[in-house]
Amino acid sequence: MNQSPPAAQAADRYDPRKFHEELVAHGLLHPSGVRGVHGRGEVFEHILQCFDALFMRTGDAPDARPMMFPPIVARELIEKMGYLGNFPQLIGSVHSFFGSDAQAREMAARAAEGERWEDMLDIAEVMLLPAACYPVYPLFGGLLPQGGRLVSVVGWCFRHEPSHEPTRMQSFRMRELVRVGAPEAVQQWRDDWLARGMAMFRSLGLPVHSEVANDPFFGKTGRLLAESQREMALKFEIVVPVVSLERPTAICSFNWHQEHFTGKFGIRQSDSAVAHTACIGLGLDRSVLALFKTHGMDPDRWPQEVRSVLRL
Amino acid sequence: MNQSPPAAQAADRYDPRKFHEELVAHGLLHPSGVRGVHGRGEVFEHILQCFDALFMRTGDAPDARPMMFPPIVARELIEKMGYLGNFPQLIGSVHSFFGSDAQAREMAARAAEGERWEDMLDIAEVMLLPAACYPVYPLFGGLLPQGGRLVSVVGWCFRHEPSHEPTRMQSFRMRELVRVGAPEAVQQWRDDWLARGMAMFRSLGLPVHSEVANDPFFGKTGRLLAESQREMALKFEIVVPVVSLERPTAICSFNWHQEHFTGKFGIRQSDSAVAHTACIGLGLDRSVLALFKTHGMDPDRWPQEVRSVLRL
Repeated sequence: MNQSPPAAQAADRYDPRKFHEELVAHGLLHPSGVRGVHGRGEVFEHILQCFDALFMRTGDAPDARPMMFPPIVARELIEKMGYLGNFPQLIGSVHSFFGSDAQAREMAARAAEGERWEDMLDIAEVMLLPAACYPVYPLFGGLLPQGGRLVSVVGWCFRHEPSHEPTRMQSFRMRELVRVGAPEAVQQWRDDWLARGMAMFRSLGLPVHSEVANDPFFGKTGRLLAESQREMALKFEIVVPVVSLERPTAICSFNWHQEHFTGKFGIRQSDSAVAHTACIGLGLDRSVLALFKTHGMDPDRWPQEVRSVLRL
Repeated sequence: MNQSPPAAQAADRYDPRKFHEELVAHGLLHPSGVRGVHGRGEVFEHILQCFDALFMRTGDAPDARPMMFPPIVARELIEKMGYLGNFPQLIGSVHSFFGSDAQAREMAARAAEGERWEDMLDIAEVMLLPAACYPVYPLFGGLLPQGGRLVSVVGWCFRHEPSHEPTRMQSFRMRELVRVGAPEAVQQWRDDWLARGMAMFRSLGLPVHSEVANDPFFGKTGRLLAESQREMALKFEIVVPVVSLERPTAICSFNWHQEHFTGKFGIRQSDSAVAHTACIGLGLDRSVLALFKTHGMDPDRWPQEVRSVLRL
C-alpha cells in the first residue's frame, strides 16, 4: 500500500480545488461560471443563518441597533474613504447605458456577435459596497448621544479578486458591529470582542488562533501603511485553516480605526470631545466554509456539542 | 380657512417627495446621497422580515427549496438572457482596476482632484443582478425530476433608474418563487398564486387590484414585445397606490415565461417533454413602503388585524 508522507497528506487535506469540488458535489455551493461567484444551497444557507444568529446572541450584540444597506454605495463615499488609493485592485465600479434606441440595438448586436460593447456605457453614481460598515459612518456626523453608539449591519460585499479558492469569494456576506464613542471605551470594546470571538469560535470546535493583521493595502505605499497598521496593533484577525495549514483563513477581524472615520465625517462625542470608531467584521460565508472544512460536509454528523451551540 | 379641492388633496396625499421626507424623518429610510439608494432603519427592516415570513407561510411556499445568490451574476448570463437588448436602460455593468502601482496612484490622484478616472478601469466578468430568479435557470439544465421543481430565492436586485420616488429604488430586495415543470401545471400554479397573492395583500388591509402587465422593454421594438406580452397575458401584477392614485405601484408580479428559459438552458421534463417556467416576484421593499403609506409611519398604531397577520 502506497503511503504519502505526512506533509503531502496535509497539503492534500487542504487542497482548495478538492474542497471546492466537494462543496459543489454536496449541493452546498452552486457554480456560476465565474470564479468566486457562487450560489448557496439550502444546507449552506441554513448553517449561515444559524451561525449569524449565534453571533448576534453573543456579548452586547443583542443591544446593537440594526441597520440594512444595499450592496451598492455612493461613488463619492468610496472616493472620500480613500478606497481608490488604498485598495484599487478590489474595486467594483458600476456602469450603465444612457444611449438612444439605435445605440441600444448596436450594443445588443455586438453582444450577440461576441464583440466588446462596454464602450457604450458610462459611469453610474454608485460602486459596489466593499465593507458592510462603510455606509454607517456618514450617518453619525455631528454630536453622538451620550455613551456613543452601537450598530449592527449585515451586507453583501464585493472584492474583485477572482479565485478558485472557495474562501476567496468576489461577493460575500459580512456581519459587522460598529462601535463609536470615547476612545478608551471603543478600544476596550474591540479588545473584549477579540476574547469573545475566540471563545465563540472555539465553542464551535474550530482550531482558531488570533494574530495582529493588516488590510490588503495596494502597492509600495501600501506596504508602509500595512506595516504601520501592524505596529500600532490596529487590526486583529481570527484565523483558521480552511484551504491551507500554513496560511489559515481570516474569518473575523477586530478593527480600531481611531479617528480615521470620525475625522472624515465630523463625528464627535456628546461633549464635543474626539470620538473613535471600531468594528468587528465577521465573514459569514467564510465561517460557514470553516465549519464544513472542520466537521465535514454533512451537518447531521457534526459533533453534538457544535450542533447544540448552533441550535441546529 | 383655505380648502384645497379634493383632487389637489389626493395629489398631495400621494406626493412622492413628501412621502420620502416622512420616511426619512421617522428613521425608516436613511439617505445615501444617491437617488434611489437608501439605508433601511430598524423598524423598516423588522416589518420587511415579518412580511417576507408571511409570504413564505402562504400556499406551497413552505415546500419551495431555498437557494441564495449574491447581487452579482456572470456577464455571460445577462448576455444570454437577452437583457442587453430588452432592458439596456436598466443594466449595471461591473468594472474593475487591473493596472500597475503607478496607474493606481494616478487614478487616486484624479479622484482626489475631482477628475474623471473611470477610463483606467476594464470590465469584470460580472454584472449586477437584475432579477432574483435569473441565476436559478442555468442550474436546471437537463431533465427535471418527476413533477418538476419549486425553488425560493431572495436577492438584491439592481435597476438603473435613479429617482426621487421612494418606490423606485436602484437596489431593492425581491423574493421569488420559481416553478418549472409541465406547461399546464406551471400555468395553473401561476394563476393560483395570483389569487393567493391578492388574498394575502388584502389581509394586510392594502387596497390592491390586479392587472395584466408588461415588462419595461426598451425602445420601439420594446413596445411591440410589451404589446405581445399583454395580449398573451403572460404577466400579471398586483398594484397598490403608494406615490400616485392614478398610477399605482406594482408590488408583486406573476410571470409565465413559457419556453423562454427552458429553451435557452435545455430544461426538459423527466420524460423529455417540453417544460415551462413561471415565477412570482414579490417586491419586498415596495410592499413595506405600501404598508407604511396605507397604515402610517408607526407600526404600533397599525390596525390590530394587520399586526396580527404580520405576527408583529
